[in-house]
Amino acid sequence: MPMNSPKEDILLRTDSNGAVFLSLNRPDKLNTLSEAMLAALQVELDDIAEDPGVRCVVISAEGRGFCAGHDLQEMRSNPERDYYQTLFKRCSKMMQSIVELPVPVIAKVGGIAAAAGCQLVASCDLVIAGRSARFAVPGINVGLFCSTPAVALSRSISAKRAFDMLVTGDIIDAETALEWGLISSVVDDAELDDAVAAKVEKILSKSPSAVRYGKSMFNPQRQMSLSDAYDFAGNVMAENMMSHDAGEGIDAFLEKRKPNWEKITR
Amino acid sequence: MPMNSPKEDILLRTDSNGAVFLSLNRPDKLNTLSEAMLAALQVELDDIAEDPGVRCVVISAEGRGFCAGHDLQEMRSNPERDYYQTLFKRCSKMMQSIVELPVPVIAKVGGIAAAAGCQLVASCDLVIAGRSARFAVPGINVGLFCSTPAVALSRSISAKRAFDMLVTGDIIDAETALEWGLISSVVDDAELDDAVAAKVEKILSKSPSAVRYGKSMFNPQRQMSLSDAYDFAGNVMAENMMSHDAGEGIDAFLEKRKPNWEKITR
Amino acid sequence: MPMNSPKEDILLRTDSNGAVFLSLNRPDKLNTLSEAMLAALQVELDDIAEDPGVRCVVISAEGRGFCAGHDLQEMRSNPERDYYQTLFKRCSKMMQSIVELPVPVIAKVGGIAAAAGCQLVASCDLVIAGRSARFAVPGINVGLFCSTPAVALSRSISAKRAFDMLVTGDIIDAETALEWGLISSVVDDAELDDAVAAKVEKILSKSPSAVRYGKSMFNPQRQMSLSDAYDFAGNVMAENMMSHDAGEGIDAFLEKRKPNWEKITR
Repeated sequence: MPMNSPKEDILLRTDSNGAVFLSLNRPDKLNTLSEAMLAALQVELDDIAEDPGVRCVVISAEGRGFCAGHDLQEMRSNPERDYYQTLFKRCSKMMQSIVELPVPVIAKVGGIAAAAGCQLVASCDLVIAGRSARFAVPGINVGLFCSTPAVALSRSISAKRAFDMLVTGDIIDAETALEWGLISSVVDDAELDDAVAAKVEKILSKSPSAVRYGKSMFNPQRQMSLSDAYDFAGNVMAENMMSHDAGEGIDAFLEKRKPNWEKITR
Repeated sequence: MPMNSPKEDILLRTDSNGAVFLSLNRPDKLNTLSEAMLAALQVELDDIAEDPGVRCVVISAEGRGFCAGHDLQEMRSNPERDYYQTLFKRCSKMMQSIVELPVPVIAKVGGIAAAAGCQLVASCDLVIAGRSARFAVPGINVGLFCSTPAVALSRSISAKRAFDMLVTGDIIDAETALEWGLISSVVDDAELDDAVAAKVEKILSKSPSAVRYGKSMFNPQRQMSLSDAYDFAGNVMAENMMSHDAGEGIDAFLEKRKPNWEKITR
Repeated sequence: MPMNSPKEDILLRTDSNGAVFLSLNRPDKLNTLSEAMLAALQVELDDIAEDPGVRCVVISAEGRGFCAGHDLQEMRSNPERDYYQTLFKRCSKMMQSIVELPVPVIAKVGGIAAAAGCQLVASCDLVIAGRSARFAVPGINVGLFCSTPAVALSRSISAKRAFDMLVTGDIIDAETALEWGLISSVVDDAELDDAVAAKVEKILSKSPSAVRYGKSMFNPQRQMSLSDAYDFAGNVMAENMMSHDAGEGIDAFLEKRKPNWEKITR
């Protein structure tokens, strides 16, 4: 096998038509977010953030599990406060890079998403899960409360549900995660590929610039007062209205024809 | 027909017993929030805000749809950034006027509530919908992400559900809207009038001043820290306790009789 | 009967194995939060906050109801603004003491939880209710909008649902409260004791220090920006990783044995 065979990479990347598919590729380790995995994700996210040709990102995983969180063995081998602070800082930065990315990020979840793996799910914009997917923040079972995962989780689901998961370490199934709003849809495991492909296709069918305007305003405005959020959103929307695609899209709608979105040159 | 027949007005208003019924009246245009409609709503909301005799507001619409959002034709006829900034500022002001009104605002929704029409729904305090009502923020389909609607929507339902609606433009039905907390109740279409009348009747049966204390504190405190919110709410409640109606209401309760609320003089 | 028989105390306290069971004991008054009850709760909460041996708190109530809120008779006997401001300040402080306590607080709810009683429920971290439990914020019915309860309620359930309860005074049942996220679980009334005991047992089986790290970070971070929350949580988690229990817990997990948590000396 050649040196750089994708199968040897810790993080696989495939580009297709403006969609980037990232796949955690350490299935024997349940795709833990080791230092190497965090670094590999950060490199790709930074690259995507700068690339005007990307329109959508999918994060999935190889093997039966999605992601089991931090690499406990690696953590125990470095028993220093500085090491942990740096590690959690890097992990938090990676999660926030997803939130701040100018394009939608979809998590495709089969199997277990635990601890920082559950945080990764909570940090994505959309989550499509197979019916056998499971979610937990079980750090409490090893004496380590999932504090940074709690940040993302408590901004995705109601406080009592989040705290219950955090303090018990209990696992919830995909149906419960859907009912609580942690994930966007549940499909039969056999249909997970198709469901994700269909969602990607739908996003790719929209105006690339409008999707970017949207993702770039959605998360920042959530942190603002109502009045500031309206000022910010109003300015973004006026900007959006001045774009080629809004004019074309509205004209096409009024003329009952399909719009021709501006081509993205990479 | 006479010049000022209500049927010609873009916004109908009926007052009854302290309740104000506003009805969007441009059914052939799906009651779009044109400049004229926004201005007419603002005039009424400003008037209501100053009127101590108003105790409750209902916003409904004529025809089969509730509100299709902005008037796309009008927007395309004014392709200037300044125009759009002013338009979204006016629209955002109107939505915030609903939030800031000192009395509850009920949206009565039959048919489709789309884009800024869905934002109008999300901005009201209570929403009663007929079973055939539909909700969407489909600006993305015409190249214009529903950024200002996102402000209201993301403060009403969970982030992942809001973003999914915004980036796909997909329509949700009344049952889903209820399950997600976007609306307060769903009834059979044939019972929509009665359900809204019953809710209005219930609000009118309460102490007018207590309802005003409540609406005036509820939304502002949501934006405060827990500690500030408690300070604010405690002061409002002490004020409320000093009112005639709290004394009368508690006495009536202890004496097992019906309370006599203070009459509002207009 | 002896002078200080627990049955005569307004608030019962039992300690067992690190769990503190507080029970509102004024069943003939539906366990209202009178001045005396608020003071008794504050004393215990302050004591618990300083006691490193406490690992979990359960708040329950004697008799058929959980808590009917403020003592209306007492309130009417003191018709002064200063009195009410002080009363609501004390009540708000008590509620915030629950939020700020370094250990989880479970509400065990049978019967009605109304007004400040519903606020007490909303302020706890976990809520286990019997199927016949009921929840309401019915101050509006006596001319006194439940303003301070609204602070806790609107941080537990969605805005439209909270406002609906507040402005109508309507009662919701346990199933609805569960669906809305106000409570954590519902069990048959006959199983309420066992369900609470099992939850306490589960929390006691975890690392005491990890539970404390968790509760102490969870509520504060909810009020921060995403970036500040991550900085804060990352530091707490690094601290947590340096503790005996995290090392022991992770080692035990890797060695597939049961962990031995550090003994708490009181």
